[in-house]
Amino acid sequence: MARQVLKGIAASDGIAIAESYRLVEPDLSYSNAPITDVNAQITRLSSAIVAAKADVARIKQRAIQTMGADEAAVFDAHLEILSDPELIRQIVKLIRDQHFGAEAALKQVTDQYVDLFENMQDNPYMQGRSSDIRDVTKRVLAHLLGVTLPNPAMIDHEVIIVAHDLTPSDTAQLDRRYVKGFITDVGGRTSHSAIMARTLEIPAVVGTQSATAIIENGQTIMVDGLHGTGLVEPTASEMTKYQQAEQQFRQQKIEWKRLKDAPSETQDGITHLIAANIGTPQDLQAVLDNGGDGIGLFRSEFLYMDATDWPTEDDQFAAYQSVVAKMVEKPVVVRTMDIGGDKKLPYLKLPDEMNPFMGFRAIRISLQRTEVFRTQLRALLRASAFGNLWIMFPMIATLAELRAAKAVYYEERQRLIDEGQTVGEVKLGMMVEVPATAVMADQFAKEVDFMSIGTNDLIGYTMAADRTNEQVSYLYQPYNPAILRLIKQVIDACHHEGKVAAMCGEMAGDQIAVPLLVGMGLDEFSMSATSMLKTRALFRRLDSQKMARLVDRAIQAQTNEEVVQLVDDVVF
Amino acid sequence: MARQVLKGIAASDGIAIAESYRLVEPDLSYSNAPITDVNAQITRLSSAIVAAKADVARIKQRAIQTMGADEAAVFDAHLEILSDPELIRQIVKLIRDQHFGAEAALKQVTDQYVDLFENMQDNPYMQGRSSDIRDVTKRVLAHLLGVTLPNPAMIDHEVIIVAHDLTPSDTAQLDRRYVKGFITDVGGRTSHSAIMARTLEIPAVVGTQSATAIIENGQTIMVDGLHGTGLVEPTASEMTKYQQAEQQFRQQKIEWKRLKDAPSETQDGITHLIAANIGTPQDLQAVLDNGGDGIGLFRSEFLYMDATDWPTEDDQFAAYQSVVAKMVEKPVVVRTMDIGGDKKLPYLKLPDEMNPFMGFRAIRISLQRTEVFRTQLRALLRASAFGNLWIMFPMIATLAELRAAKAVYYEERQRLIDEGQTVGEVKLGMMVEVPATAVMADQFAKEVDFMSIGTNDLIGYTMAADRTNEQVSYLYQPYNPAILRLIKQVIDACHHEGKVAAMCGEMAGDQIAVPLLVGMGLDEFSMSATSMLKTRALFRRLDSQKMARLVDRAIQAQTNEEVVQLVDDVVF
Repeated sequence: MARQVLKGIAASDGIAIAESYRLVEPDLSYSNAPITDVNAQITRLSSAIVAAKADVARIKQRAIQTMGADEAAVFDAHLEILSDPELIRQIVKLIRDQHFGAEAALKQVTDQYVDLFENMQDNPYMQGRSSDIRDVTKRVLAHLLGVTLPNPAMIDHEVIIVAHDLTPSDTAQLDRRYVKGFITDVGGRTSHSAIMARTLEIPAVVGTQSATAIIENGQTIMVDGLHGTGLVEPTASEMTKYQQAEQQFRQQKIEWKRLKDAPSETQDGITHLIAANIGTPQDLQAVLDNGGDGIGLFRSEFLYMDATDWPTEDDQFAAYQSVVAKMVEKPVVVRTMDIGGDKKLPYLKLPDEMNPFMGFRAIRISLQRTEVFRTQLRALLRASAFGNLWIMFPMIATLAELRAAKAVYYEERQRLIDEGQTVGEVKLGMMVEVPATAVMADQFAKEVDFMSIGTNDLIGYTMAADRTNEQVSYLYQPYNPAILRLIKQVIDACHHEGKVAAMCGEMAGDQIAVPLLVGMGLDEFSMSATSMLKTRALFRRLDSQKMARLVDRAIQAQTNEEVVQLVDDVVF
Repeated sequence: MARQVLKGIAASDGIAIAESYRLVEPDLSYSNAPITDVNAQITRLSSAIVAAKADVARIKQRAIQTMGADEAAVFDAHLEILSDPELIRQIVKLIRDQHFGAEAALKQVTDQYVDLFENMQDNPYMQGRSSDIRDVTKRVLAHLLGVTLPNPAMIDHEVIIVAHDLTPSDTAQLDRRYVKGFITDVGGRTSHSAIMARTLEIPAVVGTQSATAIIENGQTIMVDGLHGTGLVEPTASEMTKYQQAEQQFRQQKIEWKRLKDAPSETQDGITHLIAANIGTPQDLQAVLDNGGDGIGLFRSEFLYMDATDWPTEDDQFAAYQSVVAKMVEKPVVVRTMDIGGDKKLPYLKLPDEMNPFMGFRAIRISLQRTEVFRTQLRALLRASAFGNLWIMFPMIATLAELRAAKAVYYEERQRLIDEGQTVGEVKLGMMVEVPATAVMADQFAKEVDFMSIGTNDLIGYTMAADRTNEQVSYLYQPYNPAILRLIKQVIDACHHEGKVAAMCGEMAGDQIAVPLLVGMGLDEFSMSATSMLKTRALFRRLDSQKMARLVDRAIQAQTNEEVVQLVDDVVF
């Protein structure tokens, strides 16, 4: 319980102090050895079932309060399973007849049900039951093994979440009112945990290696997302010091807020657009509140992922139109459907892929499913009459793909005009995330109005490392000179052809990368809405000429770390 | 049964005419609907089991003849399963009590056994049983559904294999005496089927889209691997024409053979090494027979993959020593362990990865499991005293990794010297397969003796496309100007530092790529042993200056197809 310091990666600004809450899956492994104490095993089983029922009843009560009775109904299904006499009979039979331990018997029987239900492919209701059975099994197993399952839905006071890593489904269950910070074992600035923390505007330290090994439940934890430090059981004087630092950070945020309507320009008066990445029209308010110069990436996936079938042209039109209209004359870059990779659709059956990141995704699907692509382009073209809309194709790898996508676009444009519909002036562009397009940027720049660098994927492919795989996440190196060279090559190619060079990856709002990107003359920086004002403040401290000289040194550097040092020395 | 022409990709030289043999998994899907005719279902089940037993007995007889009694013993296990009264009782019970159809009942019961056995993680024998049960189930299911399973082990006459694609396990079962050619629906020049065909020196046409849809069993098929054409039921005059073409090709091969001891030089007298890629010491004979100037890639994986535990230093030493000694003074480039990606080891537990190609593999594993890496380096260093041994690190992405690998190497070298062991002069190099290393080739070239471009992976990452995924295999474009630019950059960087530039991907023996690589001045071309003489013959027709001018045009081209056209126009 002593004071300990954890060093990690500063993933989201701010400082928070609260009690720790471990969101850690306990070890649920058990022995498969045959048992002799049949009756003792049966008693263990029934106590565990009783305890699991009590858990579920409590969770259900709380769910009724926070989410309403309808949403809480799922827990009735859990209670039913726990009371199913046939299920229990089968488990007991395995213990008695085959001398399985309670854990092994439970698992064997419930696995059979899970399999059975999952194979009922024409019955989605029964398929859904399999996940209920899995949940219930895990809960009974935890009681059998005497370990505690974390229960994020039950959090009712301010906490710092301690986790190995946070998955999207973990964060979906968290009550945002009570979560004051994150501290994790793995991940980097672009992991899901980090992006989530920045969106929630709570401090986060990731990649500490040892947070879950060191921190117990209910300890006092200080998370310093400015410096990437975690403190377990800080001393009184440390508490005071960090409370002051937190005060200071809040003050700084107020100063950033003053830049809401200021121009996005450098010390020497060069303007670069600061735009936002958004996922749905609901994200727009934060963009306006933080004085965005535009939308640099409007992901259109929400239209597809929140639906049970392909979205109609009219539904899409309404979504695009609302965003471009509210942004008035400011540019709104909409990326066409980027499904595939780790994003699946229930109504689009795709074969399982060994390497989905290098598979059938984004424009590759659009060019094969052209009816879906045409619908989206028509909706976009109609929306273009209401503001300043740009269209961007994701995952372009070859000129042939770009030309094919443009051909479909011009066909639909002509068709709409022939039908008497109004369409606006649209700028057409592409994402640069496949290394081949960065290498061939000189050729691509001739055939688009703008290029937008998607750094997350570009870094992944260029380093041949999946950043979501913790074993190789050390290779996700945004400042590696290889990455900087490719980015510079794209920006230079755009400018050579008089085109706009943009970036819409995490890197565009990164405080180490921004000075380099200013030095390269990037035209548009698109980032999380909450990073925009901080970046505008940073711009005002940067001299473009000096940054250009810094870039010359950075692209001749040898490692990621060397570049960080260079920027630190010159800028900070 | 009419005459039909199939167009595909010429994947392995030569022409063959034989009867078709479909190596196609039939559709084994069945209805899950409840049944009423309980007794009829039970009768169907028992007839199918009887028929399956007869199949297995026949296969076993044949296996005894071709492989010996020990190898054939696996079929006894299959026969035992088919005679297991408890298994049959359970299936019949499901039909009777729950009105399952025979197929559904069979699948339900056998799936449970498969699960049960697979979960016995401390019992490899029982785990192995699960694949026996799967095989047997498939066979009974086929009889229930009235479809025929292909049976490559039963082939006893000359055939052309017709397949959607050939997997390594398919080819392992083929009796090479009888297989005269391949024709497949999917794949390209670098797919497993294509590489296998070149190794076996049989003609192959891949990527026809429709071979399995068009060709039935037992038709006369002509495969023209020189032009990428398949003919179903050719006419008599076509037969004559193709027999002549085959004659001509055989004549050409004889002429190539005459170049066995000729120098590997161009028309204008520039020498480039022609070396071979090998997988085991057994492959060496083909290299000597085909007059290789060296081994450009000795994959060391066989030592790990054919073993039940990490290979010892002495076992590795013996393998490396035998190869370098037999190659006398010719260079032998050994690649250190390239496990991971699609290559797994039974004794190395790795977490499942979403994108194994972008995951924990090759040098990334070696640098974490340094004890394994040290053992390999010691074995290599000891073998270096017996010939001209070069060591190459795979999947290097950053200078930090290269330096870490070299540091381990120098430590072990010093340790061996301190122990009084003899070590030779070793050249140290790296594979260029991660795009970042091609982009940073100028920096890497300063710190190695040679670089060897692994085009298969380099193309995959640069185009962000998994070439084994047929949905995106069109993006595997070796002549895409993006790829050519990266290759040229690597070769130029090596020469600028006075280092050796090599290539060990499929591209090094590709007849379109070779003229371009000669133009770029590649020093060493490493390829399948069977492609070496053909490449030496091609060299003699090429003028280096003219090819250098061709390269200037190719890297300014826009598409893969444009480059093919350029080379065709100038060279062929």
